[in-house]
Amino acid sequence: MEKIKIGICGYGNLGKGVEKEISKVNDMELKAIFTKRNPEKIQKLSKVNVIQYSKIFEFKDDIEVMIMCGGSATDLPNQVPKIAKYYNTVDSFDTHAKIPEYYENVNKSAIQENKTCTICGGWDPGLFSIIRLYGESFLPQGNSHTFWGKGVSQGHSNAIRSINGVKDGIQYTIPNEEMIKKIRSGKIINISEKEKHIRQCFVVAEDGANRKEIENKIKKMPNYFEGYKTEVNFISEEEMKEKHNKLFHGGLVIREGKTGDENNHIMEYQLKLDSNPEFTASILIALARATYRLNRLGVYGAKTILEIPPFLLSEKCIQELRKTLL
Amino acid sequence: MEKIKIGICGYGNLGKGVEKEISKVNDMELKAIFTKRNPEKIQKLSKVNVIQYSKIFEFKDDIEVMIMCGGSATDLPNQVPKIAKYYNTVDSFDTHAKIPEYYENVNKSAIQENKTCTICGGWDPGLFSIIRLYGESFLPQGNSHTFWGKGVSQGHSNAIRSINGVKDGIQYTIPNEEMIKKIRSGKIINISEKEKHIRQCFVVAEDGANRKEIENKIKKMPNYFEGYKTEVNFISEEEMKEKHNKLFHGGLVIREGKTGDENNHIMEYQLKLDSNPEFTASILIALARATYRLNRLGVYGAKTILEIPPFLLSEKCIQELRKTLL
Repeated sequence: MEKIKIGICGYGNLGKGVEKEISKVNDMELKAIFTKRNPEKIQKLSKVNVIQYSKIFEFKDDIEVMIMCGGSATDLPNQVPKIAKYYNTVDSFDTHAKIPEYYENVNKSAIQENKTCTICGGWDPGLFSIIRLYGESFLPQGNSHTFWGKGVSQGHSNAIRSINGVKDGIQYTIPNEEMIKKIRSGKIINISEKEKHIRQCFVVAEDGANRKEIENKIKKMPNYFEGYKTEVNFISEEEMKEKHNKLFHGGLVIREGKTGDENNHIMEYQLKLDSNPEFTASILIALARATYRLNRLGVYGAKTILEIPPFLLSEKCIQELRKTLL
Repeated sequence: MEKIKIGICGYGNLGKGVEKEISKVNDMELKAIFTKRNPEKIQKLSKVNVIQYSKIFEFKDDIEVMIMCGGSATDLPNQVPKIAKYYNTVDSFDTHAKIPEYYENVNKSAIQENKTCTICGGWDPGLFSIIRLYGESFLPQGNSHTFWGKGVSQGHSNAIRSINGVKDGIQYTIPNEEMIKKIRSGKIINISEKEKHIRQCFVVAEDGANRKEIENKIKKMPNYFEGYKTEVNFISEEEMKEKHNKLFHGGLVIREGKTGDENNHIMEYQLKLDSNPEFTASILIALARATYRLNRLGVYGAKTILEIPPFLLSEKCIQELRKTLL
């Protein structure tokens, strides 16, 4: 069997996750990892070549899908519209407000060179987006609710670390179980985003820093913490290293709705993930397979998981899927 | 907006569900209901025409998708391969073992006349099939488990009613919660189908019937009850009518698996449905929309939900979906 030739662009937690998980599928081959850092200083997990990002355009004939593992803030919006002219790509862009603009930029490049680029392909946006779509399509008279956690929010953790006097910090997003119970019992429909989650922070303060001031700064930080029920705990550096070193996460999508005059229905999808980056990596790998196949079918441009026929994600052929999954 | 013209073929619980739910979507119009019974004796819910099944081939120009609401045992395998030459169709065929054969028969007819026919489109097979597909595609190192219930199994209820001396009967399929707990905790992988569910029966016996004999016949019935933990309760006709008149159902798909060396992940999808036929009807309506669109795109033949790009199920356009669901 001919294997799909894969490249990884960006070698943080997500890139390492792709490197690990790709070795477990049968139809793909990792050809190279690209990094903006000095390739010689990279501690890689496998034998694959690590190459300077500046040379990424030289491997056009050796790589069929580039899995983009940079961040959504600056890496992806800068890189993907350029790279989409050379490679089919997959990414997990997740800045919700900027998705339409990002889509346009990637689509323009990809269409121009007959490439296929799947964007926003993690678990949210991504897997949860499809679940929300099935929810509202199959139960149109209803309401959808998404909860995240319990898990580590990288964005909120970074926000804590940016405060003066903070040596290290981590933030857990915790879903409000009371609200979930009310939704399940059909008793609640309108909930503000800020009521849905509790923000639990663990902070290592610099010696001599004013803890009361740090706590206030966290709790009043707009967009991130202001208006949320926020809990701030100061801990030692040792405790941080020992007890808060896992990037676990999870979430829940609930659709509750009615049919007929009075029949209630609940559709619930829940994820509990020991490693957010490894699970996201695993989704990106399946999307790389689908992206490659769409490209071979002549479907070009930027795509989202909402547009991908599900069977294209599987290593198995459609005949086998019909037999075993239906 | 031009509405999709829909027909319903078969007017039992499922057909009535489609009739009710279709009035709640904006892009479809119910044109006619076809029945094998005498149309004049049908108590219908809306003003739509009820027409004898023998005349179904006369409405080729008035109906764009026929929603097939007959049973899987005899109706669908007889009707759909014929009707697929005249209409795009949607059905909820669910005899797992016969799906490949059914697919071939429907596909041959549909291809011949440029029709599109979505088969096996309820919640299992159907929605649960896609969930299983996402599970094994996104978490390839793992195991999938499907549980049904608590809910009414029509097949098992019919089996009870077929026993001599039984006046009425109903069977609830109850998932084994102990097993579910073990799977969630990653402690179990191999479970026999018969360990996964408990079968709870309520029976109204004829006057003078031998209850012990009925109980034995139920418990020993091959395929349906033999080998299962089965509970048989005799009740009065009044109690049956009062307490056992709802066709509620539900189910659970669990995927548990690993990434990296030791990171565990759980993906869980759960349905709790007050009305199995109305929820199934609601899925068939969304599939009718997607089937119509596939046909307009020139995609012909038999299709399953595994092959349908999710966005085609929604009333909303892809631009709006990208903005609101990603």
